[in-house]
Amino acid sequence: MYSLGKKVTAEMIGTFVLVLFGCGSAATAGGELGYTGIALAFGLSIVALAYVIGPISGCHVNPAVSLAMLIGGKLSGRDFIAYLVAQAAGAVAGSALLYAIFHSAGKTAANLGQNGYGDGYGIGISALMAVIVEIVLTFVFVYAIMGVTSEPANGKVAGLVIGLTLTLVHLLGIGLTGTSVNPARSFGPAILLGGEALSELWVFVTAPFVGAALAAIAFRTLNVRKAG
Amino acid sequence: MYSLGKKVTAEMIGTFVLVLFGCGSAATAGGELGYTGIALAFGLSIVALAYVIGPISGCHVNPAVSLAMLIGGKLSGRDFIAYLVAQAAGAVAGSALLYAIFHSAGKTAANLGQNGYGDGYGIGISALMAVIVEIVLTFVFVYAIMGVTSEPANGKVAGLVIGLTLTLVHLLGIGLTGTSVNPARSFGPAILLGGEALSELWVFVTAPFVGAALAAIAFRTLNVRKAG
Amino acid sequence: MYSLGKKVTAEMIGTFVLVLFGCGSAATAGGELGYTGIALAFGLSIVALAYVIGPISGCHVNPAVSLAMLIGGKLSGRDFIAYLVAQAAGAVAGSALLYAIFHSAGKTAANLGQNGYGDGYGIGISALMAVIVEIVLTFVFVYAIMGVTSEPANGKVAGLVIGLTLTLVHLLGIGLTGTSVNPARSFGPAILLGGEALSELWVFVTAPFVGAALAAIAFRTLNVRKAG
Amino acid sequence: MYSLGKKVTAEMIGTFVLVLFGCGSAATAGGELGYTGIALAFGLSIVALAYVIGPISGCHVNPAVSLAMLIGGKLSGRDFIAYLVAQAAGAVAGSALLYAIFHSAGKTAANLGQNGYGDGYGIGISALMAVIVEIVLTFVFVYAIMGVTSEPANGKVAGLVIGLTLTLVHLLGIGLTGTSVNPARSFGPAILLGGEALSELWVFVTAPFVGAALAAIAFRTLNVRKAG
Repeated sequence: MYSLGKKVTAEMIGTFVLVLFGCGSAATAGGELGYTGIALAFGLSIVALAYVIGPISGCHVNPAVSLAMLIGGKLSGRDFIAYLVAQAAGAVAGSALLYAIFHSAGKTAANLGQNGYGDGYGIGISALMAVIVEIVLTFVFVYAIMGVTSEPANGKVAGLVIGLTLTLVHLLGIGLTGTSVNPARSFGPAILLGGEALSELWVFVTAPFVGAALAAIAFRTLNVRKAG
Repeated sequence: MYSLGKKVTAEMIGTFVLVLFGCGSAATAGGELGYTGIALAFGLSIVALAYVIGPISGCHVNPAVSLAMLIGGKLSGRDFIAYLVAQAAGAVAGSALLYAIFHSAGKTAANLGQNGYGDGYGIGISALMAVIVEIVLTFVFVYAIMGVTSEPANGKVAGLVIGLTLTLVHLLGIGLTGTSVNPARSFGPAILLGGEALSELWVFVTAPFVGAALAAIAFRTLNVRKAG
Repeated sequence: MYSLGKKVTAEMIGTFVLVLFGCGSAATAGGELGYTGIALAFGLSIVALAYVIGPISGCHVNPAVSLAMLIGGKLSGRDFIAYLVAQAAGAVAGSALLYAIFHSAGKTAANLGQNGYGDGYGIGISALMAVIVEIVLTFVFVYAIMGVTSEPANGKVAGLVIGLTLTLVHLLGIGLTGTSVNPARSFGPAILLGGEALSELWVFVTAPFVGAALAAIAFRTLNVRKAG
Repeated sequence: MYSLGKKVTAEMIGTFVLVLFGCGSAATAGGELGYTGIALAFGLSIVALAYVIGPISGCHVNPAVSLAMLIGGKLSGRDFIAYLVAQAAGAVAGSALLYAIFHSAGKTAANLGQNGYGDGYGIGISALMAVIVEIVLTFVFVYAIMGVTSEPANGKVAGLVIGLTLTLVHLLGIGLTGTSVNPARSFGPAILLGGEALSELWVFVTAPFVGAALAAIAFRTLNVRKAG
């Protein structure tokens, strides 16, 4: 067992990496990467992290994942709070380095990979649809995590599968909400930028939590092996 | 063993996810993703689903795959019918959410990722060639599934291999027929859109069934280890 | 053990699939896929095939790979000849279906994914450099195959690794020679098209054989565990 | 155990391949591949090499990785020096073949995939920020390597995970510094080209070494299982 201090440090580093590489790829090179490259940057962040901080903290790097683990009884209430604070701090640090990168190049950091909806963001879906989309995206992501990690024999490929699932939800979601599925990932850019990114943050905090909770419930309901 | 109710629910959720993410990526962001990104969206849907609904229902999410399993004696006739209904329902639900997404953005949902052929679709192949192409694409997809799942030791990578094979058949097929290889995946958009998508649906129902049956026969003929 | 008849049938089907999907993606949708998508089509063909025809024939689908296996003592001379004929036949069949696809769309099949060099092909390297490039590309591809298949524990990921290595050699090679590393893959389009594709075919037959032989020698020299 | 001669030969071949395929893809076909394709070329070079030279030399092909192994007590000081010389020689050979490829096509080899910063390179970050970025990129890359290789059960997927992590650091880094994380990979083009590539080389030698040392320290501090 690792100490809570190590777990929290791992979650902070991990969320820093996810936000820096995922949001950073979108913000600094979105045109050159295309949606496919951005989606890979988010997904491969998880692949890189899973095998090194996974053994320490479980590599949640996402408050919605931590909520699902809390519901599933794999994380205590105290640790859940500690994880959230660490994830938020890591995300802000990632966004801050991205801000500094733009600054060092003499550019305005108006794009830090923030999430959004409505006119001028992606195809322009409504706030209500953004909530629905984020619930569905997070449901798929967290349900896949619960499935692949529930079977010990999957251990060696679990990081690959989870990372590629995060890539999947970005392939569809980038053009709709930018894909949050992770309140911390949305919190970082919103704190640095304020404005719409901050005023729309509620969607990207509440919907991923709802989607993750539904995934935890679906897993408990469907994936229990007794006849239903 | 899981109950048929759970299996059917899993197939419905899975086909919903495949259609929403695969067809949805093509329809909402095809230009930004390119064919490569669309092909990954279809393939990674299977990667995400295989490890969570695979243990429940086998993760067919495709009537042609279910037919191959029926022929291979791994699915009863009753379950085959139940799977088909669930897959069709899931596909329609996926297409309906995609329709609502476009509606919420004030856009006409003329493109739901439907399959097709002839003038104005892909490079414009004939109906006969569309049938041949879909038979070949489905043969490759289903033959790969039968191979990778026949060897228990492959278990942990089977989901990755099957998903990447679905990506493969899309890399070639998107520009020809849009790639069905899955009657349910074609049924969803066709029901919502009507018109050509519906009048051409017969190709994308019959050809995948034929391709899957040929794959099941080829597997039984070639992959039996006794000297031939 | 599988009969030679089954092995040969598997190699024919496999090479048909490789040429149809690899060359076909390049020829029908190269612009939409980009080099990255084309490289994935070739690589994922191997991923799809490895787990279903690999157990039968070893999934060479490439005379240069068969040569390395002959040198390594894993294939008899008689089987080597039989494999070559089957691979050539499968490649021609793949190119022929591709030809028919273009024909059915009312298009001239001037591009069947043929290899080449010189003015007007890729960046325009010389014939000598094309030979060197193909030797190096094939060396890397075949050396990786020998490494990953020599360790039984790699079995489950070997197909993924070999396929991704074929993707790698295409990422560099498409803009230079189109990437052969496989005499059969070059033979198919050349027979159908004639002209430059046929007159330059000698490069794509001899260089892959040389590269594969060098890889077999390097593997025997370097990868034997005794101190050298 | 393999002899030092074999280890050094393996590192030289491996670094040659990494530089030829990674830098070569960027230089000859960067526009056609996009950042995503270039990032895959670097990453898949490691996937191809890991399973064939990994068993011989550990497949460092990177002086920064060798430094981390020296710090971690897995490489002797003598072997560290021998590895560095071999890696530098392999990198120069890779760049030289790339130079010859351009020459054979009658083109000036002004782009060999060199790293850089400042006006006219990527988004134009400062020298200080280039140092910071390279430290972070290398930290993530080497920390992931240490994690995935520390668990013997990961053996079969370690090459995939390390390669995909190298792809990740390129997705973010190509537009900033071109992504070095590897002094040898920067040394090759700089020696061939001179000019800015050579005058800026200090960044791409020192920062990766610092990042790798920090990763080794972080791993020793965080990933030890005793309560901290």
